[in-house]
Amino acid sequence: MAETVRVCELNWIDYDRRLREDAPVVMLPVGSLEQHGPHLPMHCDALIPTAICEAVAARTGDLVAPTISYGYKSQPKSGGGNHFPGTTSLDGQTLIFVVRDVIKEFARHGVRKLTLMDGHYENNMFLVEGIDLALRELRRDGIDDLRIAKLPYWEYASQATLDKVFPDGFPGWPLEHAGVMETSVMLHLHPALVNMDKVPTHPPADFPRHDMYPYDPATVPSSGALSSARIATAEKGKMFVDEYVDGAVAALAEAFGEPRAAKRVVA
Amino acid sequence: MAETVRVCELNWIDYDRRLREDAPVVMLPVGSLEQHGPHLPMHCDALIPTAICEAVAARTGDLVAPTISYGYKSQPKSGGGNHFPGTTSLDGQTLIFVVRDVIKEFARHGVRKLTLMDGHYENNMFLVEGIDLALRELRRDGIDDLRIAKLPYWEYASQATLDKVFPDGFPGWPLEHAGVMETSVMLHLHPALVNMDKVPTHPPADFPRHDMYPYDPATVPSSGALSSARIATAEKGKMFVDEYVDGAVAALAEAFGEPRAAKRVVA
Amino acid sequence: MAETVRVCELNWIDYDRRLREDAPVVMLPVGSLEQHGPHLPMHCDALIPTAICEAVAARTGDLVAPTISYGYKSQPKSGGGNHFPGTTSLDGQTLIFVVRDVIKEFARHGVRKLTLMDGHYENNMFLVEGIDLALRELRRDGIDDLRIAKLPYWEYASQATLDKVFPDGFPGWPLEHAGVMETSVMLHLHPALVNMDKVPTHPPADFPRHDMYPYDPATVPSSGALSSARIATAEKGKMFVDEYVDGAVAALAEAFGEPRAAKRVVA
Amino acid sequence: MAETVRVCELNWIDYDRRLREDAPVVMLPVGSLEQHGPHLPMHCDALIPTAICEAVAARTGDLVAPTISYGYKSQPKSGGGNHFPGTTSLDGQTLIFVVRDVIKEFARHGVRKLTLMDGHYENNMFLVEGIDLALRELRRDGIDDLRIAKLPYWEYASQATLDKVFPDGFPGWPLEHAGVMETSVMLHLHPALVNMDKVPTHPPADFPRHDMYPYDPATVPSSGALSSARIATAEKGKMFVDEYVDGAVAALAEAFGEPRAAKRVVA
Amino acid sequence: MAETVRVCELNWIDYDRRLREDAPVVMLPVGSLEQHGPHLPMHCDALIPTAICEAVAARTGDLVAPTISYGYKSQPKSGGGNHFPGTTSLDGQTLIFVVRDVIKEFARHGVRKLTLMDGHYENNMFLVEGIDLALRELRRDGIDDLRIAKLPYWEYASQATLDKVFPDGFPGWPLEHAGVMETSVMLHLHPALVNMDKVPTHPPADFPRHDMYPYDPATVPSSGALSSARIATAEKGKMFVDEYVDGAVAALAEAFGEPRAAKRVVA
Amino acid sequence: MAETVRVCELNWIDYDRRLREDAPVVMLPVGSLEQHGPHLPMHCDALIPTAICEAVAARTGDLVAPTISYGYKSQPKSGGGNHFPGTTSLDGQTLIFVVRDVIKEFARHGVRKLTLMDGHYENNMFLVEGIDLALRELRRDGIDDLRIAKLPYWEYASQATLDKVFPDGFPGWPLEHAGVMETSVMLHLHPALVNMDKVPTHPPADFPRHDMYPYDPATVPSSGALSSARIATAEKGKMFVDEYVDGAVAALAEAFGEPRAAKRVVA
Repeated sequence: MAETVRVCELNWIDYDRRLREDAPVVMLPVGSLEQHGPHLPMHCDALIPTAICEAVAARTGDLVAPTISYGYKSQPKSGGGNHFPGTTSLDGQTLIFVVRDVIKEFARHGVRKLTLMDGHYENNMFLVEGIDLALRELRRDGIDDLRIAKLPYWEYASQATLDKVFPDGFPGWPLEHAGVMETSVMLHLHPALVNMDKVPTHPPADFPRHDMYPYDPATVPSSGALSSARIATAEKGKMFVDEYVDGAVAALAEAFGEPRAAKRVVA
Repeated sequence: MAETVRVCELNWIDYDRRLREDAPVVMLPVGSLEQHGPHLPMHCDALIPTAICEAVAARTGDLVAPTISYGYKSQPKSGGGNHFPGTTSLDGQTLIFVVRDVIKEFARHGVRKLTLMDGHYENNMFLVEGIDLALRELRRDGIDDLRIAKLPYWEYASQATLDKVFPDGFPGWPLEHAGVMETSVMLHLHPALVNMDKVPTHPPADFPRHDMYPYDPATVPSSGALSSARIATAEKGKMFVDEYVDGAVAALAEAFGEPRAAKRVVA
Repeated sequence: MAETVRVCELNWIDYDRRLREDAPVVMLPVGSLEQHGPHLPMHCDALIPTAICEAVAARTGDLVAPTISYGYKSQPKSGGGNHFPGTTSLDGQTLIFVVRDVIKEFARHGVRKLTLMDGHYENNMFLVEGIDLALRELRRDGIDDLRIAKLPYWEYASQATLDKVFPDGFPGWPLEHAGVMETSVMLHLHPALVNMDKVPTHPPADFPRHDMYPYDPATVPSSGALSSARIATAEKGKMFVDEYVDGAVAALAEAFGEPRAAKRVVA
Repeated sequence: MAETVRVCELNWIDYDRRLREDAPVVMLPVGSLEQHGPHLPMHCDALIPTAICEAVAARTGDLVAPTISYGYKSQPKSGGGNHFPGTTSLDGQTLIFVVRDVIKEFARHGVRKLTLMDGHYENNMFLVEGIDLALRELRRDGIDDLRIAKLPYWEYASQATLDKVFPDGFPGWPLEHAGVMETSVMLHLHPALVNMDKVPTHPPADFPRHDMYPYDPATVPSSGALSSARIATAEKGKMFVDEYVDGAVAALAEAFGEPRAAKRVVA
Repeated sequence: MAETVRVCELNWIDYDRRLREDAPVVMLPVGSLEQHGPHLPMHCDALIPTAICEAVAARTGDLVAPTISYGYKSQPKSGGGNHFPGTTSLDGQTLIFVVRDVIKEFARHGVRKLTLMDGHYENNMFLVEGIDLALRELRRDGIDDLRIAKLPYWEYASQATLDKVFPDGFPGWPLEHAGVMETSVMLHLHPALVNMDKVPTHPPADFPRHDMYPYDPATVPSSGALSSARIATAEKGKMFVDEYVDGAVAALAEAFGEPRAAKRVVA
Repeated sequence: MAETVRVCELNWIDYDRRLREDAPVVMLPVGSLEQHGPHLPMHCDALIPTAICEAVAARTGDLVAPTISYGYKSQPKSGGGNHFPGTTSLDGQTLIFVVRDVIKEFARHGVRKLTLMDGHYENNMFLVEGIDLALRELRRDGIDDLRIAKLPYWEYASQATLDKVFPDGFPGWPLEHAGVMETSVMLHLHPALVNMDKVPTHPPADFPRHDMYPYDPATVPSSGALSSARIATAEKGKMFVDEYVDGAVAALAEAFGEPRAAKRVVA
């Protein structure tokens, strides 16, 4: 198990052997380059699912593909909106095509268990469409046994953890953009990239139920964060990450059966 | 106010006059053709937002454009999935283009207040992208003052109503596909199209947190409904619709100011 | 035969049963939202083929799918041009994709007899391309027995009727935009939507043989009608509609064999 | 006037000078590679408009761009259908893009008078869309004074000529695919490419009013011609071509004013 | 062998017979409309590969399809850049689609040996992609035995010829845009289209290693030629063309086996 | 200068400040996931330009954007071909769109100096097209002062270095796929990812001048390397990297003027 979990660090012969011997899950993190307030780096949505995928793969004997680094346009209510400098987004069609193409290539290699782990809420439906187009084309190419799991890592947080982390009540995932959860997780995974001195302390964003296009940037907190992360800690981050990894490991087992590592240990 | 609220029933000269005199909101319902269990017709997602838009327009003096009748692919957790006979869906890119084109045309007419009311949850991000592409192109055409509101009608249900309708607790909107709310609303709006004798009585669908592609149809209730609508009534439907209309009227006021009808009444 | 002919009013289980028991034709009306002079509503091109399809289906036991409400860009010589307020059109590629997607979905349901009835002349070649792309993809999906008939309803008018309706000679279909035929048919089908007081009385449009892009709007009658409908009557409309329905029923029989109703009557 | 009329034979400096000094019309022939019966070469639809454009340009001092050699899919009722060997067609979107791109480039050069002459009936609406997209993009690029004329050469045949050529009555343009007119014109323009010994003598094709997709190839004459050209002669061809050239010259004058040659003769 | 080598001059029955009897290679020249300095016509990149293909086909018994006349955008270092009047280019996607569509059609006819000969350096990768998309779709259509050769004619020039033509050293193909080779070849093939009086005498273009976008037109020689063709002669042109034809004939033999003419001579 | 050069590690406020204060170049590495023989990891084409960009930025005070990790399809003569397991490629259109979208976003942030450094030869023309589409759209958005430099790092190797590294003569860049240069550079940059024990020792690949589609995988060395890297060393790698960095620094100075670091040092 000392081998890398990163597809990109393997040579093709080892990769090919791994596919044939272990039939591993290939996990594809999908992120974004998006402002995350004044205290977090702009690659949170890529770094977090990548780290979770690598931790999962280290336990299961699976593989992690290179992260898709650019995602769909940030929306005001879940990411602050796409007007911020630094936020660097793709058109929907572009993201759909990237996902479609990459999936088809892994299927060509012989991968039959694929997992997409999304770190950027706005990507979701474009991943769905990219997956659907890939599966449709693959069926035409005679490949009908690829199975893909899309894993929403944040949903593996337990209520107990949420209660502990948010003593005043959990504000909901959308407002968590650059909030307590993401900041805690980053403090745990990449503390050098977090500057807690700059955490905004403004109240959570307050949005009407409808959406305006174009929206008025003044309706979004000028910090770019949708709620304050001042109670974030690395310990909380570890609690989340542990549950995310456990949840994802369990989901892979449910989706694809016995972990691949088992086979390797036996062999 | 006896004039029709339907753009499609106006002749172009009256339509043009209305635009210039009243500067009305044009409301665009977006639906789908999607199975809704054994007891509901397949056009619920089009009929409901169309009816709400027309009721709103009758109060505000606004207009309703022809409904977009086909929507994005049904997903298992919110619509039962796209494998059912009858469910008739568009690719993501197709829906994006339809929305983009129609918006640009209304802007060319001189409409500067536009509203999309979506009746099919899966459409949402493709509407967002269609809106974004339209606004981007319109800016290049020198039109930068079109404002668009996207209205989620179901979010205008009050907690009081939800408590009343669901004495055992509200199961959440996604499981409401062909459930108590949609069925009640259809009983109120189009009772002849509802067959309460066929309402399924199975327990709500139970999904894992992750999504599988392709999914196993056996993981979706074979009725196509995600929860049982057996407690649906027309009275409950009226409660919902009244709140939806009130909520939408208020949202339009917030988004676009004084109702257009005011001007007409004065004039 | 008391059952609805509208797919959208059926629940999926009845729809599925109809497909399996009767193998009906599914008829897809395709229209536009396009100005039709000062005396007709803007949805003529959708309303007319929809009404004909429903009348046909009532006789044959077939089904009518939700109308495609927005069509290709109006051209000066056949629809007055796309500069009028109210005319709301799709790009060619958009319409191609809509038609392609919808056809593929009906094929997935098991429909093997499909009919497109177009009410908007400008749509035609984009329907042809949408059909071709759908059939090409379906063949790759292993479906090669879908047959599609495209029906030009207006061509089922007899010379006798044309002679009777146009005592001074039939000016040709393109100039009939908002003219005697369409107005008569609307007087028969939807009299409340026609305002004969506003019928323009100008002479027919006179176009050179070539087309200019961009065209000068002054070369098109400012009414939006290409000829005068002042001799239109509901009686004439009934004559046309009767022949359209008869013609379409006969065409379906020629294209697809014995009417589906026969089977139902026997059963 | 001894200079070539062909853009492709000019060097760029002479081309540029011609544009600035004469402001000529650039004429773009659009054709197809399509079977034309056993007696005609497959490039008729390219050769004929190219020859007409060159003859026009020789009289008017205008220019002819390289012909677009591949066109839209042949349809049974106007070209025999796309199943014949040799017929080599583009998807609709492809032809739209070619036309759009080429127009935009001529506009970039400074051309402000452009003419499309189509030799292949099926191309028409895709030319319309390519023109519309080009003009839309050009407006965004600040170019709003490009005018484009689309010329239907065959419509410049006079009734007198049709009466002379078809003593038994003119069957209509669609059935003229590889018929008397096209064959006569080819005998006049390219006699070496016509083999009158092989002219089919079967009766004209007889089609129902509706269209079937896929169509049965047996419903199309197996020769690929839609009517017999046995009465075709070079003399008749000359009559047609003379009228086509006269008609096009007159149309250019109507569309764009005084011929460009006038300026050159004077200068 | 007196029959034409041009597909476009054949009727479909002879074409079809040739395909079935000889299984010839169909050669598709791909060019551009691009400025080639003050002394060469703008269609060099189409004329040269077309002439080579026709000469090859005359020896091998193969066929030549109509040339694709418009190519990808001229680049400064290989074609002077796309800012020159006269240069008329397609977007990458457009060229990809044209190539894809045309290849698929030839495959449908039964062609199984196809050759693309490119005369315009900038086209290359878009041809590669068009080929790849066509082969991918054809496999889905059950055609997996089409083989395509892409021939770079200029690479068949021998070092001996280059040494003879360029006594001061060969500057490399990119700088040969409108240079000694292309001019010599045109003097040999189309002397009437070359004006040696206008050959520029400026030194070769001198570019940095990197590329700028947008580039400064002043960094490209204002003549449009990248080097001087003053030593070009028809004799040198003949040397090149002879080697190109020999090289292409040999390449076809290597790619597709015994020349098709052999079969015809025997028969 | 202790600040990170990675855009993705900055928070948006620092990024925005850097843009406004320093007007830095943003450098975008573009790579691929492609087999690189049995001895190199599959992300060489991403790792190498990323490392060079970061080294350049550390000297110039510029910034490096997240690497585009997936590139265009591997070609036999430059990358071994796209049939190898592990090679994971995008369609041309997909890569064009990714490049277009990302460029437009950086321009929106206010970046006016952009650099693309490509590590994967096959990407090149798709980058060109992506750049062209982005600049075209940006002009329509009123941004016409973005300048983009595309840097071919390998061309900054001096002849002296090539002579030293390849005592038997430099085989040319295409055959260097997984060859001496790439291996040496990886030994210098990422020694832990190189396994010199597995370096293939077969002779360089030998290709005909033409390209076949589909190609026979047997015509490509089964190792995936196009030449042997057995003489690769980390010292040679350092020589290359030093020249690449020097060359790129000089190119940026030529393209964009005084290094950004100067400003920062002064300030």
